[in-house]
Amino acid sequence: MFFASDNSGPVPKQVLQALTQANTGYAMGYGADDEMAEVTARIREIFEAPEAAVHLVATGTAANSLALATLCQPFETIFCTPVAHIHEDECNAPEFYTGGAKLTLVPGAAGSDDKMTPAALHATIAREESRGVHGPQRGPVSITQVTGRGTIYALDEIKAIAQVTRDFGLPLHMDGARFTNALVALGCTPAEMTWKAGVDAVCFGGTKNGLMGVEAVIFFDPKHAWEFEVRRKRGGHLFSKHRYLSAQMLAYLTDDLWRDNARKANANCAYLAAGLEQKGAPFLHEAQANMIFAALPRATHQRLFEAGAIYHLWDGPLEGDPEQEVTARFVCDWALSKDLIDQFLDLL
Amino acid sequence: MFFASDNSGPVPKQVLQALTQANTGYAMGYGADDEMAEVTARIREIFEAPEAAVHLVATGTAANSLALATLCQPFETIFCTPVAHIHEDECNAPEFYTGGAKLTLVPGAAGSDDKMTPAALHATIAREESRGVHGPQRGPVSITQVTGRGTIYALDEIKAIAQVTRDFGLPLHMDGARFTNALVALGCTPAEMTWKAGVDAVCFGGTKNGLMGVEAVIFFDPKHAWEFEVRRKRGGHLFSKHRYLSAQMLAYLTDDLWRDNARKANANCAYLAAGLEQKGAPFLHEAQANMIFAALPRATHQRLFEAGAIYHLWDGPLEGDPEQEVTARFVCDWALSKDLIDQFLDLL
Amino acid sequence: MFFASDNSGPVPKQVLQALTQANTGYAMGYGADDEMAEVTARIREIFEAPEAAVHLVATGTAANSLALATLCQPFETIFCTPVAHIHEDECNAPEFYTGGAKLTLVPGAAGSDDKMTPAALHATIAREESRGVHGPQRGPVSITQVTGRGTIYALDEIKAIAQVTRDFGLPLHMDGARFTNALVALGCTPAEMTWKAGVDAVCFGGTKNGLMGVEAVIFFDPKHAWEFEVRRKRGGHLFSKHRYLSAQMLAYLTDDLWRDNARKANANCAYLAAGLEQKGAPFLHEAQANMIFAALPRATHQRLFEAGAIYHLWDGPLEGDPEQEVTARFVCDWALSKDLIDQFLDLL
Amino acid sequence: MFFASDNSGPVPKQVLQALTQANTGYAMGYGADDEMAEVTARIREIFEAPEAAVHLVATGTAANSLALATLCQPFETIFCTPVAHIHEDECNAPEFYTGGAKLTLVPGAAGSDDKMTPAALHATIAREESRGVHGPQRGPVSITQVTGRGTIYALDEIKAIAQVTRDFGLPLHMDGARFTNALVALGCTPAEMTWKAGVDAVCFGGTKNGLMGVEAVIFFDPKHAWEFEVRRKRGGHLFSKHRYLSAQMLAYLTDDLWRDNARKANANCAYLAAGLEQKGAPFLHEAQANMIFAALPRATHQRLFEAGAIYHLWDGPLEGDPEQEVTARFVCDWALSKDLIDQFLDLL
Repeated sequence: MFFASDNSGPVPKQVLQALTQANTGYAMGYGADDEMAEVTARIREIFEAPEAAVHLVATGTAANSLALATLCQPFETIFCTPVAHIHEDECNAPEFYTGGAKLTLVPGAAGSDDKMTPAALHATIAREESRGVHGPQRGPVSITQVTGRGTIYALDEIKAIAQVTRDFGLPLHMDGARFTNALVALGCTPAEMTWKAGVDAVCFGGTKNGLMGVEAVIFFDPKHAWEFEVRRKRGGHLFSKHRYLSAQMLAYLTDDLWRDNARKANANCAYLAAGLEQKGAPFLHEAQANMIFAALPRATHQRLFEAGAIYHLWDGPLEGDPEQEVTARFVCDWALSKDLIDQFLDLL
Repeated sequence: MFFASDNSGPVPKQVLQALTQANTGYAMGYGADDEMAEVTARIREIFEAPEAAVHLVATGTAANSLALATLCQPFETIFCTPVAHIHEDECNAPEFYTGGAKLTLVPGAAGSDDKMTPAALHATIAREESRGVHGPQRGPVSITQVTGRGTIYALDEIKAIAQVTRDFGLPLHMDGARFTNALVALGCTPAEMTWKAGVDAVCFGGTKNGLMGVEAVIFFDPKHAWEFEVRRKRGGHLFSKHRYLSAQMLAYLTDDLWRDNARKANANCAYLAAGLEQKGAPFLHEAQANMIFAALPRATHQRLFEAGAIYHLWDGPLEGDPEQEVTARFVCDWALSKDLIDQFLDLL
Repeated sequence: MFFASDNSGPVPKQVLQALTQANTGYAMGYGADDEMAEVTARIREIFEAPEAAVHLVATGTAANSLALATLCQPFETIFCTPVAHIHEDECNAPEFYTGGAKLTLVPGAAGSDDKMTPAALHATIAREESRGVHGPQRGPVSITQVTGRGTIYALDEIKAIAQVTRDFGLPLHMDGARFTNALVALGCTPAEMTWKAGVDAVCFGGTKNGLMGVEAVIFFDPKHAWEFEVRRKRGGHLFSKHRYLSAQMLAYLTDDLWRDNARKANANCAYLAAGLEQKGAPFLHEAQANMIFAALPRATHQRLFEAGAIYHLWDGPLEGDPEQEVTARFVCDWALSKDLIDQFLDLL
Repeated sequence: MFFASDNSGPVPKQVLQALTQANTGYAMGYGADDEMAEVTARIREIFEAPEAAVHLVATGTAANSLALATLCQPFETIFCTPVAHIHEDECNAPEFYTGGAKLTLVPGAAGSDDKMTPAALHATIAREESRGVHGPQRGPVSITQVTGRGTIYALDEIKAIAQVTRDFGLPLHMDGARFTNALVALGCTPAEMTWKAGVDAVCFGGTKNGLMGVEAVIFFDPKHAWEFEVRRKRGGHLFSKHRYLSAQMLAYLTDDLWRDNARKANANCAYLAAGLEQKGAPFLHEAQANMIFAALPRATHQRLFEAGAIYHLWDGPLEGDPEQEVTARFVCDWALSKDLIDQFLDLL
């Protein structure tokens, strides 16, 4: 009954097999391994982007920060939402990697802190740089797909954001830690969700969807490749035994493992959401991918925790009026089973 | 016939087994996994340091830079040798992580760029900060064990350097990317080679000695623990699925795998060195650990490369007078076999 | 008719006289001039802080950024209001000097972006660091006195903010670019407005109140002195011919010039405000110090600009419906005359 | 008898007059003052560079660091000599402003630490970046004119260095803190000593030659202008009351004050050197500009200090064998008189 995060479950056996298979003989280090050549070819094919620059790192924070640092000057500001991972959960990594850029928060629709609207983005960008050299200069826009609230930008929404971004001559970055969960939910192609919609760089996450710690950073314009490589090395994120990253990513992209895992995770979440709905727990948003926020009385949380359920409370502590509802975040990964979810729902 | 580096060979089967074993069920992320608790206990035991702060990262550059950043202010300078990995091979990572500290080079004995001498260290430190606020302030001293030249600091040499360091009130850092190769060569204990000799922080390398990419950073004074943790997260070096790092390190420390691997690597190197010596190839230094530098005529290199040998030339290009000798670096890892080395020596 | 800023007028003749007087013979550089010893003594006396560390720099951005960098780690976040100069008008200087710290915005009362309330500060601080190592760590609180909206924190308000700050164990910084304008308005002592109210460090501005470019940074705990000095040098803000800064600051503190200038500026603003009120221009806030925001129809702005008035529009461009009101910012310095203000009011 | 530095004497009366003259009425801030337009025009004329970007800052450290940061990426290394001010005397300011670039030291002729030779520069640059992504990437070359040893690069020497720099596609920066002292010694034009010889950016110093604290940063390619402006603001080096910098620089460039001052300083130094030579004090280098290094017995230093002479010892402390010679640095500024120098020589 583990709903705390999608980075706590095991990896599929294909990943272990791939590591075993890669573990023979000597291989050139630092990304010059044969497996990486295959990874690059495969990602270019999947993204229909034959020129794209493709690099691997081991964590999402590294992927986002290095990608943004490549696109952003230290005197600029990055536009993102208040719940963006890069703002809330990376301990100033984007500020660190960019050399001190700022993050400017763009509100969502109707006072929400979720998905940014094109109008709010336009207004926020317009407001910056109205003070010449005094304020931060305008920098990249960063969106998260799936968002930190578990919702998904529709293709039209991405396009509209990209249009605003392009109107100001800025690059568009997508934090795709849960890229595939969004992809299979939208039923679109990777190209459609990225460069065809106007995205310039995407962090194509593997870790939350079944790998031990592998993320691909993709720039659709290859001119960024060398600077990214140098920044990756400078950040200590270039693996000498790189083949063990490549092999995982290759297994991920083989036989649709990536999409299968995401479908499983989303299905698990839908199943959980249906169960919670039946129990009358109010949702913050509909289940779209593999994460939902639902409110339950404190007493219920108490009972669930005691029975071994693991998940995070979101808008209040466990201590307090037992009748009062507190919102919890439930994240489902590919490895959860209906049995486990049923077991949890039965506890309710 | 791969002598290019000790980070290009396979990992021992125990490491893969450990990953498989760790891959069951759900585990708390970000270092809160049960395996990490074991790793910490085991390292404290091995180092006879029951209070030590122990953290894992995936690369040596991250380990060194984060450790130094924790010990160093941005307005200070780090003292190291001209061939220190942190100076030559980390693309300004120490400067980046410290927020702009400088590296001041300390010469070795008799104009060598290898091991720093206490006298040279003393003179170099004394010279810095003689200009008050104008020059960089004195910061940590960093030594590499095994050095980038393949030599080893004797315990007395470390103690003498630590004495100088302590006289100036500075911390002493050890880059131990090849820690165990030195340890087994010296036949001493980890405690003797570190805190008992005056070392404050050590990067205890696993990657070059059989792991996929795991290094432990150890502070003997636990007061540095929290700052290191925050800096690790900010650097994007905190693994969410941390158990896969812990499991590797645990396997490494089990049944003496770490020492066995290092002994094998050193033995391979000694065997290679003996063979080269027999062929009359002049050495830069005696073989002490798992790396030697030896000079051979260009024509010989040409022949060896064509026959499939892989290693780096050090002080000149392959192109040129075929009679002229060019120094090459030969690094041996644990996985090399005598057969392969014999095959190489036969080619000579 | 210059109301664009209080940094555009001339300096009082006393400042030029002081420069002339200081311009004799040779003087030790870099802050070791005799005048600086006097400045330190005088400021300690004025602030009733015999141990305070006192340093001069030439710009307000340098003063704030260096002070904050001394109080803040790169993995922390600084709490300030949305209209704080450090957030809006310093082009990421605080992020730069701190090595990548974040700025977290604290709302004011009732959705205002002006003065932070203790309750909002408490809630904002509490929210940060609720995510352990993942979010930025809590850092200094920074308030601006006079605020960017021209209002003044009452002593009780500062104390209440300081109480919150202290409850979390954080330092409190005051951006006092218009320190003296607030001081004379409140009719209190410098000590009452700073350390007696709980302020740890203050940037005591001289530039906006009659100097060519001199600000004093004061730490009430002298333990910060050396780090500040080193950071000042590293930032290129240590003047070799430092006596020309000291001499100005000394003139400023002699014969109450500082308070006289601030009184004049405030009186000019009050006079302007009264005039505007009479003309029926709605205010954003009451005039408290030397800056007001008032709304006028676009057509009026157009007429005033054409007649030579100089000031900034705040919430909209000059282009648009001529009947529509647009808010303007009017800042008065000590050198304005009633004649000039009358001339301006007559134009209305 | 003040020979400690050329930043400790008074400023010429023309500078004070210029400040007085500039001190009337209101002026646009932040570099938009009328005087600055004149400064730009005048410098472009003097340097025969009608497109050059011209900006003022108040300190040499700021000038150098901001210029280099504009020309250098954080993952690059700057090539300079071991006695470069940017290396020895700026407390890591270049590392800070570049975001963590390294400084790589280029030796001078015959083991000297003074002027770099083209051959040594070529070899040093060639050596860097031989390790791909692992080492720092090649960045700007920086030379100091007059050097920290008081010597001057001949025009041919600058050209030869620029040729090497250009061969590697790198920019060439000149730290011209004592630009005019070199200029009048060489008897050439500013254009000949800079862009005609291959210099891309020069810090044209005023502070050591008679101003209170004003340096012009000149880029011969104006494409760098905006980035420099933003970096200057971000560094807290943009003056709001900018006219007081402009006015000084304008006075400096009027009626040949800049060249006159430098001629006086150089003549003072030549006079002092002749006197010292007569007394048999051995020189490190011939007097070329306004700074010499000469050796005297400790006992003599002791006697001179007691009689009120002020200067710095260079290669040893005052304490020790009174017969032993210790090198001292003697710097002469424009304001010294022959009388004072005679007085000093008489003491010998």
